[in-house]
Amino acid sequence: MKIYGDLLSGNCLKVKYTADYLGIVYRWVAIDIMAGESRTASYLALNPAGQVPVLELDDGRVLCQSNAIIQYLAEGAPLLPSDPYLRGQVNEMLFWEQYSHEPYIAVCRFAMLYLGKPKEAREDWRVERGEAALDFLEDRLADRRWLAADRFTVADIALLAYTRLAPEGGFDLQARGNLVDWIGRAEKELGLEG
Amino acid sequence: MKIYGDLLSGNCLKVKYTADYLGIVYRWVAIDIMAGESRTASYLALNPAGQVPVLELDDGRVLCQSNAIIQYLAEGAPLLPSDPYLRGQVNEMLFWEQYSHEPYIAVCRFAMLYLGKPKEAREDWRVERGEAALDFLEDRLADRRWLAADRFTVADIALLAYTRLAPEGGFDLQARGNLVDWIGRAEKELGLEG
Repeated sequence: MKIYGDLLSGNCLKVKYTADYLGIVYRWVAIDIMAGESRTASYLALNPAGQVPVLELDDGRVLCQSNAIIQYLAEGAPLLPSDPYLRGQVNEMLFWEQYSHEPYIAVCRFAMLYLGKPKEAREDWRVERGEAALDFLEDRLADRRWLAADRFTVADIALLAYTRLAPEGGFDLQARGNLVDWIGRAEKELGLEG
Repeated sequence: MKIYGDLLSGNCLKVKYTADYLGIVYRWVAIDIMAGESRTASYLALNPAGQVPVLELDDGRVLCQSNAIIQYLAEGAPLLPSDPYLRGQVNEMLFWEQYSHEPYIAVCRFAMLYLGKPKEAREDWRVERGEAALDFLEDRLADRRWLAADRFTVADIALLAYTRLAPEGGFDLQARGNLVDWIGRAEKELGLEG
């Protein structure tokens, strides 16, 4: 299979982390967003939404949306529980990530890292919601080691991707001890330390 | 089971449509967002994110996020394919809905319907992305009857909820023939006509 992605994008890193963790063999096709490579005619034929990442199976079938891709890759593995309620908890966190976390944390990071804007140029309402998202995670982790179910799942991978990079978007993690500990645990699972 | 929701909210209607379609017996607990009922201490104990809808099982376990709830309800039914790739396509559309459709269509509708603002007061960037989302659906439906897999699925239910209400957010559907036809088909499946 092929994974089309940009290694600066947390959404793409989720897919890389999941595939690597599961020992899946794939070819990484580098797409440079800032160079317009996700807006070419050939890329739009692959994904009309013009977003990264994209998974292309060996038979040519295509799957888009980072969280849909990691669910697909993890099907049958402990990373995605088969119990309906535990799977529901994983899904809950995946949808929460795309609606209540990524649009704030990742978009602020995009402004600073990709567009080179200063921290002060971030939109106030996005900063406020990004801080609220980090607080939500900090509270959720007060009495649990992992974000969904009772073990390391794709929910942790999906949230780790942009949370560990939140400082690049001007967010301070250090005052959130549960979150810092969880990042360390999840990075260790994925072999990302050091 | 209980479903906590506000019948003005498309996210809540998704859950109602799915439960009704599947003949699931539930008690609807009306939560009036505008009256602050989703921000009370008792509600936040149920869902710390303060969002509707919430599903509460008979044993007290709780599940949040509309698209996670409809997946949970539809598990094992034709509405949610068991084939991994077809399920992946359904998930792709569910995540796209929450990231690329709801924040534009539903938020513009909220401004007009809940806050009573005129159409001209909508944020330009949200209008632009909302129009792009409707165009994306129109194109996707050019050669298919349903949005994912090859039959009516929870992806259609999730997208129908706010798409059929898009005119309340100032969006015109009439020039999009494929979309209008699909809305009619989906409403017929759900018994929503007339």
